[in-house]
Amino acid sequence: MPPPRARTRSLVLGVDLGATKVLAGLVDPSGRVVATSDRRVHRNDGPKGVAAAVLSEVAALTEGHERPGAAGVAVAGQVDAATGRVLYAPNLRWRMVPLGRVLAEALRLPVRVENDVRAATWGEWKHGRSRGRSNLLCIYIGTGVGGGIVSDGRLLSGAVGAAGEIGHLTVVAGGRPCSCPNRGCFEAYASGWAIAARAAEAIRRDPRGPALAAACGGRPRPTATDVTAAARAGDRLAVELMTETERYCADGIVGLVNVLNPERVLLGGGVLEGWPGILRAAREAVAARCQPPAARAVRVERASLGPMASVIGAAWLARAGARRRTAPT
Amino acid sequence: MPPPRARTRSLVLGVDLGATKVLAGLVDPSGRVVATSDRRVHRNDGPKGVAAAVLSEVAALTEGHERPGAAGVAVAGQVDAATGRVLYAPNLRWRMVPLGRVLAEALRLPVRVENDVRAATWGEWKHGRSRGRSNLLCIYIGTGVGGGIVSDGRLLSGAVGAAGEIGHLTVVAGGRPCSCPNRGCFEAYASGWAIAARAAEAIRRDPRGPALAAACGGRPRPTATDVTAAARAGDRLAVELMTETERYCADGIVGLVNVLNPERVLLGGGVLEGWPGILRAAREAVAARCQPPAARAVRVERASLGPMASVIGAAWLARAGARRRTAPT
Repeated sequence: MPPPRARTRSLVLGVDLGATKVLAGLVDPSGRVVATSDRRVHRNDGPKGVAAAVLSEVAALTEGHERPGAAGVAVAGQVDAATGRVLYAPNLRWRMVPLGRVLAEALRLPVRVENDVRAATWGEWKHGRSRGRSNLLCIYIGTGVGGGIVSDGRLLSGAVGAAGEIGHLTVVAGGRPCSCPNRGCFEAYASGWAIAARAAEAIRRDPRGPALAAACGGRPRPTATDVTAAARAGDRLAVELMTETERYCADGIVGLVNVLNPERVLLGGGVLEGWPGILRAAREAVAARCQPPAARAVRVERASLGPMASVIGAAWLARAGARRRTAPT
Repeated sequence: MPPPRARTRSLVLGVDLGATKVLAGLVDPSGRVVATSDRRVHRNDGPKGVAAAVLSEVAALTEGHERPGAAGVAVAGQVDAATGRVLYAPNLRWRMVPLGRVLAEALRLPVRVENDVRAATWGEWKHGRSRGRSNLLCIYIGTGVGGGIVSDGRLLSGAVGAAGEIGHLTVVAGGRPCSCPNRGCFEAYASGWAIAARAAEAIRRDPRGPALAAACGGRPRPTATDVTAAARAGDRLAVELMTETERYCADGIVGLVNVLNPERVLLGGGVLEGWPGILRAAREAVAARCQPPAARAVRVERASLGPMASVIGAAWLARAGARRRTAPT
């Protein structure tokens, strides 16, 4: 039996800090999640309140387990991974929060902070069904749209670590305004917020609008979840909105496959889970419309780790960082 | 003075084989072109005729110079760089032409074959004004639109060497048909052939069409060169067409900067040379509409090597290949 200290190092903590929920897991070296815990947070809690929630959750999670050797935290926002600082997390309304330092002091562990979809891409690349592929494109279609690009065996970072902003690829020149300064972005059509905005417009303008509003429980501003549920229940306008969403996603993905020539495109996120037709549409479009060599080389799949991808990826990064610190090679 | 054999190795040959012209240069180790020569070719000449033209041109070019140590050939088409085979060159109407082998036997030199815009990207990266940058996006807007991506210090290759097909990024979901199976591609709006097609449509449909046709020398199907000349001369419809072209280019480039986070975007190609407003529009759009960290990190510039970029890049690749063969490291 190995000494306690070495066993301690075998688990690391992965935390996914979203706008409404903290999801934490203890992850073993093979990427398996041996225990999980989640709790709701609210952006009005502020950085200190959210950090306190993370701490108490970690305490509950690690009870009865070995103390983890490091922690990785995935945050929905722009992150400076080198310093652990959250530069901007619009859904939490955070700017310039030194999250890594705060958590490292409180947890007395090395802490690595990363953007959530980049962490999820690391998770899929290191522990998902497509692990080890040298050319991987992960796209998460949820509240926003984001992703990560593995090309020639490296997760692309770009000049200042901002590569992978797939949600802000222009798919309709001069199109709908986005949450960013651009127009016509992938995210401005396919994200949860964009589907909600398109549905609200359709309810106002389309003769079938009242039926959709009724199918969404009478809400004047239904959420994307309401819209996909209405579409699954057969509401015609909701089906039309989601079929358009499929097309925008497919067109964006065809372009990215042509530019990046990946072996796998992995799709995940809440919108995709709610409307899997996006996966089928993307698959058909890539096969039919990409450059033939790129089309032949790629498969479009559902991301295999689901909502745990960010937790597993953040844990992998924390483990890699801890290994680098203890044994620089 | 070094022995003749060593001096022989100091020059390599770079050849850019386009649809209508062969451009060749002798390139020294610093990337300087010490002699050039060009001649017209016609696709009806076929692979043997074109190879013969290359050979006689090389003979003329190298007369009075040292014998080059290797040759690099850039071809407008899909190329298997590993075998030197041209898989598909639509403008030359070539399929599966073993160009590398044919030229290597005839020239008695090691020959490296590469796609023309990838070669041009190598040229800019290794010998252009932005040489050595780790994150570079080169976009050539000419008869077609193509490019190359340098990310984190590597020219991206992708799963089967097809990365960089920037011309086939979707910029208008469900938009104009392209030369490829997709619709709404960057190339379907901004390339020379697309500008010509959009102008022909405008001439048929717009009340100002006859004036544009007259400004284009009365041709019913003016070329992109005719259209940009007419726009420079003040034709209103031509100016409108080129202003739209600027917008499509800018929208595509904004999306690519968001996805790839380069330090430099280098723009080149015949359409850009004919209508430099594209450069200004791209610069303004990137500054105003990209994700702020990506916008701050990037500069949009004109490619610095002009039409010699492919020649210089092909020569660089040939030199690197020859070095690898003689001194594997």
